[in-house]
Amino acid sequence: MLKIIVNGCNGKMGSVLTKCILSEDDLELVCGVSPDDKINVKYKTYQKMNYINENADVIIDFSHHSTLDDVLSFALKTKTPLVIATTGYNQDELNKIYDASKKIPIFHSSNMSLGVNVLVKLVKEAANMLDGFDIEIIEKHHNKKVDAPSGTAVMIANSIKEILPKIENNYGRYGREAKRTENEVGIHAIRGGTIVGEHNVIFAGHDEVIEIKHSAQSKDIFAKGSIAAAKYLVNQIEGYYNMNNMLS
Amino acid sequence: MLKIIVNGCNGKMGSVLTKCILSEDDLELVCGVSPDDKINVKYKTYQKMNYINENADVIIDFSHHSTLDDVLSFALKTKTPLVIATTGYNQDELNKIYDASKKIPIFHSSNMSLGVNVLVKLVKEAANMLDGFDIEIIEKHHNKKVDAPSGTAVMIANSIKEILPKIENNYGRYGREAKRTENEVGIHAIRGGTIVGEHNVIFAGHDEVIEIKHSAQSKDIFAKGSIAAAKYLVNQIEGYYNMNNMLS
Amino acid sequence: MLKIIVNGCNGKMGSVLTKCILSEDDLELVCGVSPDDKINVKYKTYQKMNYINENADVIIDFSHHSTLDDVLSFALKTKTPLVIATTGYNQDELNKIYDASKKIPIFHSSNMSLGVNVLVKLVKEAANMLDGFDIEIIEKHHNKKVDAPSGTAVMIANSIKEILPKIENNYGRYGREAKRTENEVGIHAIRGGTIVGEHNVIFAGHDEVIEIKHSAQSKDIFAKGSIAAAKYLVNQIEGYYNMNNMLS
Amino acid sequence: MLKIIVNGCNGKMGSVLTKCILSEDDLELVCGVSPDDKINVKYKTYQKMNYINENADVIIDFSHHSTLDDVLSFALKTKTPLVIATTGYNQDELNKIYDASKKIPIFHSSNMSLGVNVLVKLVKEAANMLDGFDIEIIEKHHNKKVDAPSGTAVMIANSIKEILPKIENNYGRYGREAKRTENEVGIHAIRGGTIVGEHNVIFAGHDEVIEIKHSAQSKDIFAKGSIAAAKYLVNQIEGYYNMNNMLS
Repeated sequence: MLKIIVNGCNGKMGSVLTKCILSEDDLELVCGVSPDDKINVKYKTYQKMNYINENADVIIDFSHHSTLDDVLSFALKTKTPLVIATTGYNQDELNKIYDASKKIPIFHSSNMSLGVNVLVKLVKEAANMLDGFDIEIIEKHHNKKVDAPSGTAVMIANSIKEILPKIENNYGRYGREAKRTENEVGIHAIRGGTIVGEHNVIFAGHDEVIEIKHSAQSKDIFAKGSIAAAKYLVNQIEGYYNMNNMLS
Repeated sequence: MLKIIVNGCNGKMGSVLTKCILSEDDLELVCGVSPDDKINVKYKTYQKMNYINENADVIIDFSHHSTLDDVLSFALKTKTPLVIATTGYNQDELNKIYDASKKIPIFHSSNMSLGVNVLVKLVKEAANMLDGFDIEIIEKHHNKKVDAPSGTAVMIANSIKEILPKIENNYGRYGREAKRTENEVGIHAIRGGTIVGEHNVIFAGHDEVIEIKHSAQSKDIFAKGSIAAAKYLVNQIEGYYNMNNMLS
Repeated sequence: MLKIIVNGCNGKMGSVLTKCILSEDDLELVCGVSPDDKINVKYKTYQKMNYINENADVIIDFSHHSTLDDVLSFALKTKTPLVIATTGYNQDELNKIYDASKKIPIFHSSNMSLGVNVLVKLVKEAANMLDGFDIEIIEKHHNKKVDAPSGTAVMIANSIKEILPKIENNYGRYGREAKRTENEVGIHAIRGGTIVGEHNVIFAGHDEVIEIKHSAQSKDIFAKGSIAAAKYLVNQIEGYYNMNNMLS
Repeated sequence: MLKIIVNGCNGKMGSVLTKCILSEDDLELVCGVSPDDKINVKYKTYQKMNYINENADVIIDFSHHSTLDDVLSFALKTKTPLVIATTGYNQDELNKIYDASKKIPIFHSSNMSLGVNVLVKLVKEAANMLDGFDIEIIEKHHNKKVDAPSGTAVMIANSIKEILPKIENNYGRYGREAKRTENEVGIHAIRGGTIVGEHNVIFAGHDEVIEIKHSAQSKDIFAKGSIAAAKYLVNQIEGYYNMNNMLS
């Protein structure tokens, strides 16, 4: 039985995560932490991490970057491994996380979906092996999404650039003289209906094409990924971990 | 046995077509017509339609718009049904075709692929039925293609506009404030390797998506489509026919 | 404002439907009907249709075939159009529905998804136009699904048979001498994870392939489809209607 | 300029390969070897490897297992690296190949497509990372293919078994009680038209799906793959190499 504290239990992802934990037999939700003291949930909650009296095996943090001091001081004090899925940290805060990881195991990722991280890993391998293939990224999301392309599509393009440094992004190829150049990666943002999220990377060569695709059905995948990270982290010594460590 | 004359037998599509005809048991290639008199082929050729002495059941024309007078005068003189797959006609020439179709059956289409025409027909039906769905077009072609998007993708978008007149094309959605509007059709041009041609139309609604997709493997499909048109045409009376007539 | 009564408001689909109605500004949930009198919902409920005092524009029935007499007598008495999404009727019950449709408008369909019905319609059109193409059906569902292939895949195959009567279903092509015959439709049941439902129909010809695909994200699509049917039905005179009427 | 001898230049793959070599500026076709002495080609041919007087950088063998002695004795005598794409060797012959690889570099693979081998490598990685995901394989080929599923699909399933030994193949899931078991891999053989070859591996988990897909457009990919192997091999010392060595 893995005992978990959730920081940020009242947020959109916090709600998804606590629901996931409560539905699994081998997980125990010790308590949640939320600045909102009127939160209506079936588990115990605190307004700050440092008010907690219980012990846990691991903390999962889907909160706001401003709560970092509170969560780090509690984690260090109680020697509890910490999974950080919160985004928006500045450099100072990142340094604090890194320092803390010298004393306790910390897992830090801005995208907790196991599948998306596996996609990125496979895409990098493919880019390394498929010399001379043209790479294009197609992502699909719902019609309310404000930005294009998705942050994940940019993350994928950046990871390809680690393998093929000459690559440049081409958004929205269009025109009479829009012939492809060798070193571009076309990135295409499809929008429609309520599509949760799909990322497809195409490697097109001479008479053959390889595609690597990830489709998400719900936000559950970020919750599930953070739980997988938690299970991984409790078996590690102090240090700074991310999805690459877990997947290799 | 269908007896066929091919006008423009020396061109890229003419070569594909004559090869297709020669490989089919129920088709006979009466002769080809090509302005080039040094053409090295196994069938009889003439430099002009009007030099031909043989009879045929149908003429298929994959030539140049400038040969129109020659092909029309031969077809009218011999009362031979005529399939026109040539493009680039001006209004005068189009009028001549239309006039001739009052005396003989003429089939005229700028895209002879059966599959692409079926796609267009299905897309129009779907656009008519799927009220409020967001429509996006994704096309894929080889990395040597100069223009983006493909002419066929534009043709598909135009055919959607016949059903939904408010629709506007959006090429290359990109930026921080790139939220989809209700009346746009996103058009996306993927380029890579030697992909012959793929057109995918996505209808995305609330929690469901319908896709209609056409993939081409070779230019044979245009030859096969013109042969299908020829078989259809020989059973028609005089008149002006296109893929819509044949498919309905 | 469309005023709706939901029969079977306590079932799985009834819950989805009432939630959908409550979330739409132009719809009013007059009341629900459920044999369970302890149902905990925010709208008025009755145990039988005939206990209802309110008026409505339309009834949507996602209940059990055994409640048919109750719902028909109420609908006939109040002259209220009736959308029937319930399944499992015997011939006697079907006759009663048909008889009632001589006096009030009744919409009856065993699959209320707009998208699936559009798919079937498009597939029939394609089967009619794509002479000589090989047809294969691929469906994907979650790993808890007991039967294979899905009822919808069989429904699609049956609708193809209306166009091409010689077609026979081939489930699970396998072996050393498993060459395709001309008149078979391969049907393939993919199972995995939590996939809600996907149906893909492939038409493969000489050097070209057309695919028509439907993907579902949730059961909402059946609720949305029944609401669309209700909106259609309130503008009809007495008669027996189904998705084909609505979509044409 | 890489100088190449092709053994089996008259076969189906030999013809594709020689055409590929002749079309590339950095490759030279020294000569071909074919038992048929009436072969009508534009390059020099011999009836046996041992009749050849010219030198080459590498031999590519797409012939018949019965020519093994001839090709090995020539390769050993002239110390020429050897790429073997021929199939059907018995254990004795395999031993001879292995012995020869102690003296010269030999590259041996029964599937020379770079893309298919990359697919297999990516699938193994994914199977290793995606714990608890359900795996299904879908392959598509033309309607003349005699066997189902394809040899490549079986090769992919076997490579998954290296990672997940408990896996068992399920061909053609069908019936009322056809619920998926945890340790099966569904394998599905779609057949239609002139599809050259497509292999799609699906990993379906909780609310997310990863797909890895390879599509072939022509047999060129096997020729191109063998040329890539040749370029790789000429830089290696004696030894036994395969696609895994080249791709890592």
